[in-house]
Amino acid sequence: MDAGGGQEIEQLIRLLGRLPGFGPRSARRVALYLLKEPQTRLVPLARALEKAGDAIRTCSSCGNLDTLDPCHICRDPLREHAVVCVVETVGDLWALERAGVHRGVYQVLGGTLSPLSGTGPEDLNVAPLFARLEAGQVREVILALGATVEGATTMHWLMDRLVAYGGVTVSRVAQGVPMGGALDVLDDGTLAAALGARRPA
Amino acid sequence: MDAGGGQEIEQLIRLLGRLPGFGPRSARRVALYLLKEPQTRLVPLARALEKAGDAIRTCSSCGNLDTLDPCHICRDPLREHAVVCVVETVGDLWALERAGVHRGVYQVLGGTLSPLSGTGPEDLNVAPLFARLEAGQVREVILALGATVEGATTMHWLMDRLVAYGGVTVSRVAQGVPMGGALDVLDDGTLAAALGARRPA
Repeated sequence: MDAGGGQEIEQLIRLLGRLPGFGPRSARRVALYLLKEPQTRLVPLARALEKAGDAIRTCSSCGNLDTLDPCHICRDPLREHAVVCVVETVGDLWALERAGVHRGVYQVLGGTLSPLSGTGPEDLNVAPLFARLEAGQVREVILALGATVEGATTMHWLMDRLVAYGGVTVSRVAQGVPMGGALDVLDDGTLAAALGARRPA
Repeated sequence: MDAGGGQEIEQLIRLLGRLPGFGPRSARRVALYLLKEPQTRLVPLARALEKAGDAIRTCSSCGNLDTLDPCHICRDPLREHAVVCVVETVGDLWALERAGVHRGVYQVLGGTLSPLSGTGPEDLNVAPLFARLEAGQVREVILALGATVEGATTMHWLMDRLVAYGGVTVSRVAQGVPMGGALDVLDDGTLAAALGARRPA
């Protein structure tokens, strides 16, 4: 017996141990923290999880996770809907939003092209972007992909497809994103600089 | 807006950010991980939290957190109920159980004496131990408290009270070099204790 008693406690520790950044030790620590004062710690968290799980939607337009579909960004009339920033993950979108450096909308690919992990173009969430491009609703596409091999591969694939749309400016975030770095761990200043110094692709 | 949308998501991130070892960044990472696949990640965790919260009891005998009261240790007839190991927290109890080094029962104090944080003897869960001592049910008390100022203060206070029970053996866990530990990373206090408690090889 690992946790000292109770199938329910062991199951909780097992699930906590699967969270990113968690090991058995941190899972036990968090479980103990929660179980020590269930009413003020465990119950509110369980309730918040349930509410978020019920409310969560994937935006059918951009791929963002939100409680609305279309998400609050896609339905915001004050944003520049003709400027689309392409990111890999929702975490990247959140990072750019926290930095407040992009006034347009987004397209969340949900991944990158990767022959190794078997991710092909058909796995990327790009259809809504090309639909908007076809409809002539896009003036500029900003490629904000990570400076990784997969990010670069994905960017080149996208650029190849974007040349078909003559009137559309395609730019990429400036190098300044550290090699091998993911966007969502960068500080706001770096994100702002990278976006501000974007150049024609 | 921090999370990119939805009061429910923000509330979840806020609560996750309060967990021990969490900051805003890890809270967002875990929230994203859970929200990305709600059915296989978020819902099972919410359910496990709810179940554990419903099932959890504080053992009225030793202070352990379990789904039973008395806990599975206190009701185990194969354990030596006359040997009581005194620990500070349920986490300490779980650690000793994982190590499988104690065949008796426990008394979880739930804290240590600390004038700074205002924890006095009346805040410690010691009444069940003294009730058992009064009833003559205890042969040995093992003090397994942390090697901190508060742990030492608590231990001395307990030893003062335990001398009243003449027939009871009182011992304390040894201080020294941890298994696998190198000497040059240990603090002076540990080295002094380890050297002072040296025994014939």
